[in-house]
Amino acid sequence: MTALPQLESDLFSQYLAFAHRLADLSGSAILPVFRNTGAIDDKAERGALDPVTAADRAAEEVIRAAITEAWPEHGVRGEEFGSVSAEAEFCWVIDPIDGTRAFIMGLPVWGTLIGLTHRGVPLLGVMNQPFIGERYWSDLDGARVRGPAGESRIATRPCTSLADALLAATSPDMFAAGVEQDRFEALVNQVRLRRFGTDCYGFCQLAAGHIDLVVEAGLHAFDIAPLIPIVERAGGCVTSWSGGPAGEGGRVVASGDPRLHEAALEVLQG
Amino acid sequence: MTALPQLESDLFSQYLAFAHRLADLSGSAILPVFRNTGAIDDKAERGALDPVTAADRAAEEVIRAAITEAWPEHGVRGEEFGSVSAEAEFCWVIDPIDGTRAFIMGLPVWGTLIGLTHRGVPLLGVMNQPFIGERYWSDLDGARVRGPAGESRIATRPCTSLADALLAATSPDMFAAGVEQDRFEALVNQVRLRRFGTDCYGFCQLAAGHIDLVVEAGLHAFDIAPLIPIVERAGGCVTSWSGGPAGEGGRVVASGDPRLHEAALEVLQG
Repeated sequence: MTALPQLESDLFSQYLAFAHRLADLSGSAILPVFRNTGAIDDKAERGALDPVTAADRAAEEVIRAAITEAWPEHGVRGEEFGSVSAEAEFCWVIDPIDGTRAFIMGLPVWGTLIGLTHRGVPLLGVMNQPFIGERYWSDLDGARVRGPAGESRIATRPCTSLADALLAATSPDMFAAGVEQDRFEALVNQVRLRRFGTDCYGFCQLAAGHIDLVVEAGLHAFDIAPLIPIVERAGGCVTSWSGGPAGEGGRVVASGDPRLHEAALEVLQG
Repeated sequence: MTALPQLESDLFSQYLAFAHRLADLSGSAILPVFRNTGAIDDKAERGALDPVTAADRAAEEVIRAAITEAWPEHGVRGEEFGSVSAEAEFCWVIDPIDGTRAFIMGLPVWGTLIGLTHRGVPLLGVMNQPFIGERYWSDLDGARVRGPAGESRIATRPCTSLADALLAATSPDMFAAGVEQDRFEALVNQVRLRRFGTDCYGFCQLAAGHIDLVVEAGLHAFDIAPLIPIVERAGGCVTSWSGGPAGEGGRVVASGDPRLHEAALEVLQG
């Protein structure tokens, strides 16, 4: 687990409050487009399998403008408009719509990811689902959810054995044929049950103690960096398949219980 | 498409109002248990891969009691407590929690399915998602949704070519190895994109014009009968893979556009 960087708690509170404001702003930009298929657009150069919506761009523009105004010295890394000052001490990492496929199919399991890194280490994160009205975030010493059932602290649950674990992954298609797919399948064969189609919701439900393992591959930094503090502050671990830092994406595994994490890493490392 | 049985519209309205009441009742029984993992139970005789929750049973009991009181001459078929008078002229077909895996993983894409058949033909259906506060249902001549974005009529969208189609399925594990899996894969290879993890939400988003094809296998009557009127009244088709009635479950394919349905059936029939 990555240690929380030392930082004065009033500055942390300011950044967290600002992250919540970004979540509010992005929700207002995205929500009118959800299930409004006429507004959907494809980014031709990426091909039909990476659909990008008008909402994706509108939300990132709104977020970037707010960051530039409030914290001009901070860096920004986003899905739609690339990186600006990514080497700054503080850098915002944002994915306006994590789960674009879910979004274009009308399924309410996408989310807006807003993270802040300090010297490259994930410091805080927010996942916002404006259609449901649900938000997950990390605090200095914990993680919380606010939604239809009210606001509460969340925590991962104990699970020491792969045989008891519930595993989530976004899609079988994210694992490259060969070693990557084989190791994923080897892990799946040892768990109690698996489910696809989870995106950022998988990590948040792991943080909330309903899922034990999330395994992904081919992630970008903006897909995972904002989720790491939520999982870690809730008591879980997020690393690469080889046990290193996961903040830059790639092959990522998250566990609610550190003992389960060791068992999963063993299988994923072959 | 199955023709809507002739029925006086005031009787239909009574049944529809009653189905909404059942949805309200079941929501109150299920919601306190969602994300309350302490209440989760396994039905040992079915094995670990078919988890059944306390909420599942509580909701079905509440629904059955209400039906018996209001319409003692009607039949009931449910997931948890079997069939009573299934051969009656009117028979309620209910699945308290469609998407049990999503439910136990904290993902809000499960739903309560409440259907009514008339002489074996699906007559009306309701899908209720109480956590989000979203409900889909069929009317005499259309289908509707009520939820966070208000209430509106829904309709399927045109899509004539497999190459343009978005396909949803609940899980790759639902297709038996061999012919069933091969035909599903043959279809997937021709569509624009696929997504797993959809359960009843896949059919409802197809009815609402955001998904073009839903392909499933191994369904029970209670998994599909309540969804058929929603899809059909919205302009879509639901049949078995061989083009016959789908109300008893098994291998099911739903399409938003009848022309796409023909193309899908051709591939699924090999």
